[in-house]
Amino acid sequence: MNWLDVLGPLTRHRDRRNPLYARIESRIRESIQSGRLTEGERLPADREMAQLLKVDRSTIARAYDELEAAGLVTSQVGRGTFVAQRGAAAEGSATGSARRAAASGDGLCQLVWAESFSRASQMTSSIVARQVTPPISGGDTISFAGGIPTQEFFPHKDFQRIVSSLLCSERSLEMFGYSPPEGHQSLRAEVRKHLSRQGIFAQDDEILILSGSQQGIDLLARTLVDPGDVVLMEDPSYFLAICNFAALGARLIPVPMDEDGLRLDVLDGIMSRQRAKLLYVMPSFQNPTGATLTSGKREELLRLARFHQVAILEDNFVGDLSFESGQLPSLRSLDPSGGTVIYQGTLSKALCPGLRLGWMVAPRQVMARLRLAKRSCDLSTNSMAQVVAAEYLREGLYEKHLLHVTEAYRQRRDVLCQALESHLGDYLSFSKPRGGMFVFGKLPEGYSSRELLSLAEKEGVSFSPGDMFFLGNDRFEFLRLSFIQLKKGEIEEGVRRLGAAVRAYAARARRSSRAATGSCGAEGTFI
Amino acid sequence: MNWLDVLGPLTRHRDRRNPLYARIESRIRESIQSGRLTEGERLPADREMAQLLKVDRSTIARAYDELEAAGLVTSQVGRGTFVAQRGAAAEGSATGSARRAAASGDGLCQLVWAESFSRASQMTSSIVARQVTPPISGGDTISFAGGIPTQEFFPHKDFQRIVSSLLCSERSLEMFGYSPPEGHQSLRAEVRKHLSRQGIFAQDDEILILSGSQQGIDLLARTLVDPGDVVLMEDPSYFLAICNFAALGARLIPVPMDEDGLRLDVLDGIMSRQRAKLLYVMPSFQNPTGATLTSGKREELLRLARFHQVAILEDNFVGDLSFESGQLPSLRSLDPSGGTVIYQGTLSKALCPGLRLGWMVAPRQVMARLRLAKRSCDLSTNSMAQVVAAEYLREGLYEKHLLHVTEAYRQRRDVLCQALESHLGDYLSFSKPRGGMFVFGKLPEGYSSRELLSLAEKEGVSFSPGDMFFLGNDRFEFLRLSFIQLKKGEIEEGVRRLGAAVRAYAARARRSSRAATGSCGAEGTFI
Repeated sequence: MNWLDVLGPLTRHRDRRNPLYARIESRIRESIQSGRLTEGERLPADREMAQLLKVDRSTIARAYDELEAAGLVTSQVGRGTFVAQRGAAAEGSATGSARRAAASGDGLCQLVWAESFSRASQMTSSIVARQVTPPISGGDTISFAGGIPTQEFFPHKDFQRIVSSLLCSERSLEMFGYSPPEGHQSLRAEVRKHLSRQGIFAQDDEILILSGSQQGIDLLARTLVDPGDVVLMEDPSYFLAICNFAALGARLIPVPMDEDGLRLDVLDGIMSRQRAKLLYVMPSFQNPTGATLTSGKREELLRLARFHQVAILEDNFVGDLSFESGQLPSLRSLDPSGGTVIYQGTLSKALCPGLRLGWMVAPRQVMARLRLAKRSCDLSTNSMAQVVAAEYLREGLYEKHLLHVTEAYRQRRDVLCQALESHLGDYLSFSKPRGGMFVFGKLPEGYSSRELLSLAEKEGVSFSPGDMFFLGNDRFEFLRLSFIQLKKGEIEEGVRRLGAAVRAYAARARRSSRAATGSCGAEGTFI
Repeated sequence: MNWLDVLGPLTRHRDRRNPLYARIESRIRESIQSGRLTEGERLPADREMAQLLKVDRSTIARAYDELEAAGLVTSQVGRGTFVAQRGAAAEGSATGSARRAAASGDGLCQLVWAESFSRASQMTSSIVARQVTPPISGGDTISFAGGIPTQEFFPHKDFQRIVSSLLCSERSLEMFGYSPPEGHQSLRAEVRKHLSRQGIFAQDDEILILSGSQQGIDLLARTLVDPGDVVLMEDPSYFLAICNFAALGARLIPVPMDEDGLRLDVLDGIMSRQRAKLLYVMPSFQNPTGATLTSGKREELLRLARFHQVAILEDNFVGDLSFESGQLPSLRSLDPSGGTVIYQGTLSKALCPGLRLGWMVAPRQVMARLRLAKRSCDLSTNSMAQVVAAEYLREGLYEKHLLHVTEAYRQRRDVLCQALESHLGDYLSFSKPRGGMFVFGKLPEGYSSRELLSLAEKEGVSFSPGDMFFLGNDRFEFLRLSFIQLKKGEIEEGVRRLGAAVRAYAARARRSSRAATGSCGAEGTFI
């Protein structure tokens, strides 16, 4: 079968309404419906088809997934993907008269739903599609991917004692009942105290408890952002924040970074040229770069935001994991009235993610809106988690926990950076982060971390490819390594494996002369 | 002072980006900043200014409010509104050069935020505003308002045992770590078994764990609904569902009800006239009416939805609280492929709300989108709650609990209905619900439950006024009574007090001849 012939000429232009995978899917669908492809015909493996069409493998995988969901093809593990039986295909079809005819049956659901998806859903889906298959993390693979805190530091014993004692007390009623949308009073009070130790002085009623800080992004986006609004983001930035703002139809404008975070000269220019509504920023130990805005840049950023009247969402997701004595002031602490900065923090990274607890600080006028958005989303946050966490904070256990884990994570960062220099010094440039959980490495010009990843997985190591964090999705030479979930020996072995993968990649690159090797194209800048 | 001259010509065109009040505000602001209006100058009262400019008085009030928030004017009760001192004005001002000048100050936040709220947020806010003050429920007031399950039935002991045992085991890691967005595998498996006992046969991967069923409405709305899409709802319906669909810009079309739920003849007509995307429906023990679709109407509803190709969201929030032997089949159980019906249930009403746990059943293709929406919202649901609830279900404790509480709630319903007939038979018509938690009563024509509520609160009893559940917000003769959170004696005393309030109201009504008394305008229908 000449597949290029079957599928016909394919343009690679960007078209949000009809993305590449959908165009490929519809070509195959037409060939099946016209009878050109017949029952039982085997489709090329996604890897082969990707090479043939010169597209990303994930694009083909997505097209095949959609065809399978529509009942047009079936895939059999270890065997391949085949054109499905006629009946199944007819059942899956749902346009025009066939749709009406099938209306009394049950089979047509898949396509009816597909036609119904909202633009927000399609947007999220199309952005998430570029993430492709997540890096392998099972078995013997050593994973620097993701960003999950270490299980060994989970507070089993303290929680067991606290939960047991609370369930015996009258406060168990609070654990089973609804909390108010803004959060349980006891947790808000403890969060207020915690924040005051960091120079953020808020009243209880300026604090909203979140079901994790992802929810903070979602709530603020819904409260402030309309289609067409300009939202500024660090480039690269947190992947799911990109999804949330984009799904609302915001115009996302990337702001380049250097080792000290946002390039403020560029930001000033952007803000001067157009009216932006919001800047989403992670000033400390940024995701994915690990970069930290200096104290001077924080003051200047705030001045710019005020001058241009742009609101800031400060996401301090790993602010509690500082490896240096004396944290830098949060933007919110430099903006005591909250007139410019809305702030959020979380327990997910420094303590544990399973509680799904975070907090947002906003002026009362904004809080009134956020509370309504929170109610629309999930009424309120899990009461049991809130009451237990409040007690944990009240007893001072979180502060103790932080002392312990920041020391452990600081050591792990050092081990990782040392190992990277030893094993990968010729190939990977990076800046040592001052806290948090990520090292962002840059491969030599022309290298692709996506291509490296498949070699790395063969060596038994994985990481997060950097392109997914860039708004343009077009920078392939970066990779993100999370160091908090691995022990010393694992980190060293993981980097050794990564070194082997990079050298194999470099050798291949030399053979194909596609990339310059042995030298680093840039010195840890991200622009 | 010639104010028309000061403010200059003013056009009355509609401009969402720069509404009339803002144009007036900015004229006054400019006059203050240019020095034309000087410190201490008295502005005309809003009524005078409104007449002068031929605009609505509220427009002027809004403009003055904004000027005051910006510190440009001060208002003194009984004296009037005056241009503020220079210092305050500079700080508060937020346009043009003054805005720039004030950029280092903190005072201008309120205006910046107020200008920034999204349309979704404004929509939610405007709908919630009609709820007005929630009924009193503290102190000695007996509250039939809200819908909170009885504290005395919360599963303290079982949870204490389960949590303690899990925290000692290896499974504690699962409680502290992230769950997948679709939910913890153990809970999905238990929910699947629970559903299969109700005739819903779904695979684990067709089940999404929700952070409460409010989240289900939100996720499905975001996944399917675009601005302008037609969403059909029972009228009256769940208040926050109205908010969610409206905030997305959906066109909400109310479908009237009778004692057996949705009027299908009317529904058929509506569906024939326009292409609807979604019908949101609570077939069993509806909120607020308590009405239940008969078995025959369920079949017919499904036939209509298929014929017109409209998706259904079946919200079975109190389906587990059936007071009659043999539950009616859920719509989803009549639609085994899930081609038409997406289903959701919750633990919040039958067990306890503080866990924030619910579930949604959808075909795989829709599930793929819902999972992404879930990730955007809060990444995943609280792991601790999921693992504990899974164990609670696995041990069969939920089924036992249901036997216990449905019997208790059935008795409370009987007590309430009996008491209403004794004390309010002449004034309130209602249908006895076959399960759930609500009785929806209808006062005589011309009565307003809002007016009654203030009398009732004086008597020490409260309820939910019915108008907030109607899409048109225009039906004042209904009131919703929740019977599950009160004991027998409280119910009886509460109804006695309500009776006293209604009689006082009727006497007042007779005096003012505004309402017909002593007879019921309708026989328990809601149309």
